[in-house]
Amino acid sequence: MPIPIKDDEIDIVIGALHSDLTTFMDAWRPIFSRFHLIIVKDPDLKEELRIPEGFNLDVYKKLDIDHVVGTSTSIIFSGYSCRYFGYLVSRKKYIVSVDDDCLPAKDNKGFLVDAVAQHITNLTTPATPFFFNTLYDPFTEGADFVRGYPFSLRSGVTCALSCGLWHNLADYDAPTQALKPEERNSRYVDAVLTVPARTLMPISGINIAFNRDAVGPALLPCLRLAGEGKFRWETMEDIWSGMCVKVICDHLGLGVKTGIPYVWRNDRGDAIASLRKEWEGVKMMEDVVPFFQSLRLPQEATTAEDCVVEVANAVNEKLGPKDPMFARAAKAMLDWVKLWKSVGVSSYSPGA
Amino acid sequence: MPIPIKDDEIDIVIGALHSDLTTFMDAWRPIFSRFHLIIVKDPDLKEELRIPEGFNLDVYKKLDIDHVVGTSTSIIFSGYSCRYFGYLVSRKKYIVSVDDDCLPAKDNKGFLVDAVAQHITNLTTPATPFFFNTLYDPFTEGADFVRGYPFSLRSGVTCALSCGLWHNLADYDAPTQALKPEERNSRYVDAVLTVPARTLMPISGINIAFNRDAVGPALLPCLRLAGEGKFRWETMEDIWSGMCVKVICDHLGLGVKTGIPYVWRNDRGDAIASLRKEWEGVKMMEDVVPFFQSLRLPQEATTAEDCVVEVANAVNEKLGPKDPMFARAAKAMLDWVKLWKSVGVSSYSPGA
Repeated sequence: MPIPIKDDEIDIVIGALHSDLTTFMDAWRPIFSRFHLIIVKDPDLKEELRIPEGFNLDVYKKLDIDHVVGTSTSIIFSGYSCRYFGYLVSRKKYIVSVDDDCLPAKDNKGFLVDAVAQHITNLTTPATPFFFNTLYDPFTEGADFVRGYPFSLRSGVTCALSCGLWHNLADYDAPTQALKPEERNSRYVDAVLTVPARTLMPISGINIAFNRDAVGPALLPCLRLAGEGKFRWETMEDIWSGMCVKVICDHLGLGVKTGIPYVWRNDRGDAIASLRKEWEGVKMMEDVVPFFQSLRLPQEATTAEDCVVEVANAVNEKLGPKDPMFARAAKAMLDWVKLWKSVGVSSYSPGA
Repeated sequence: MPIPIKDDEIDIVIGALHSDLTTFMDAWRPIFSRFHLIIVKDPDLKEELRIPEGFNLDVYKKLDIDHVVGTSTSIIFSGYSCRYFGYLVSRKKYIVSVDDDCLPAKDNKGFLVDAVAQHITNLTTPATPFFFNTLYDPFTEGADFVRGYPFSLRSGVTCALSCGLWHNLADYDAPTQALKPEERNSRYVDAVLTVPARTLMPISGINIAFNRDAVGPALLPCLRLAGEGKFRWETMEDIWSGMCVKVICDHLGLGVKTGIPYVWRNDRGDAIASLRKEWEGVKMMEDVVPFFQSLRLPQEATTAEDCVVEVANAVNEKLGPKDPMFARAAKAMLDWVKLWKSVGVSSYSPGA
């Protein structure tokens, strides 16, 4: 059974890359209206935000970011990275975050998916990273551990991160999207599973939720591609953050789940135009994956903050010489931990 | 795209624990009738088999087993283990094996599942054990690798083993089944995924397929519980074999997939009666899992036979002192490799 939690233990964090949030907010109203929302406006966005009435929310803009963060930092909150400012200023135990071009999806029976409820169920039931259960999440109703699953591992561990999926436009990179311009994802895979310990994965930031108390500082806006753009397939900040948080969860004995809930991702952007830019995302992963696969953190690192510092130092040492992008990411990670600690003891209201 | 393969590269192997196979064979007729079948009669079964007409099959009985194997071996082919005799005498590249209390399942649209076709698709498309793809099998129609998946890992590796699932009566152990006597699995999870390298899982023998050329000798009937019975939840032979084959696949750089196809498992047996027996399956896994998790095979082991010998020696050394059951399993594994090699160069027709 999931742990019962209160609505006020949850913040919904939305990075606003579009000025008109009317369609987005109205579509999510039945799901979001019970919760407190943090909306962070992309500092690059010039137009005023349009947000419909009837929500309990705080909006943070460039002035707020500058006030809290100052200018003497290597962290850039523009584009998709603006949501991380929301993770920083939240004081709640759980964060749910969805891209502003996503709408609620329907399940395989045609019912609207309550993505928040599903994410919270994922986070409040145990994860089982040390042995794979062939019937997927054993804590789902109607499922259990199969024959041969060791009883000593059945209590599981705390789930720190829940990664949801996408219907319609899947989260492909620009080359794949350009190769298959007509492909849309319609397969409803009715499952949640724990990603096994020591298994890495590309964690997308489009539709995620996490336990901020456990791993908040490990979700970080620190890697920027030289040619980073305003479309998901032109960014890697979430993939980098995901490699960090997975390695840190493995080290701390926490779990990561993937699967339902789905969100409906609307089409936008021209993948072929993105391909014409020199996108470093493909090349980057060839260095990054072996690095994270072999990374082991020292026993003394017992908090997410400690772990981020250790990862940053290793990035600087091992990846730094390969590309200045990595040295910049390492620096930003150290700045991020400092910022997380300082903001954690302060209080700030938007527009103050 | 899956590699096109011919029907005569496949053997369907059925262990007959029931004498009347009429319902079973008639239900599977639309799926099985194109293929050659190997039926191995449980040597403990006294009654004559009843098999309907219209199949291309060979039936092996106790006399055939005694003739091929002789009596000077530690391997016992009774009960669910009889199917392994079929694996031994087959000369085909692919084996598909289903318990004789399972019928074809329906998919989430109500269509009959062609379990053979799905298993063969799983085996003939690559597996991706070194990085997890959040949209599951990237070789499924309508799916692909997601953003951030390293391009150098997208060609994948050969899939050696495909583990299917079960509707209706799930594959629980006796304690779980006894605790939830009314629970039936009806969730259709429309996915196949590669179980990551170095991740262990309980592989059930109820509904599986494998590449016999690649890993045939690693599917082995070598672990017998003292109180082993005639119900699945009273056996662990497949779970043991599954730990061996997974470790061997990891060592040889081969993949293991799990997911669809489902089969429909009929109810039989009384889990509470099974619980009254002293079942060693629960206790056993507490020793077995850490052993297999830490097991590393030497570089010189380059074939499945080599690997089984190495695993057997390690079992004898590390687990043998804990329980004579493990020493017996190690002995049987060494005998199995000898038998596999000797039968491999002979030819035998059933009833000869």
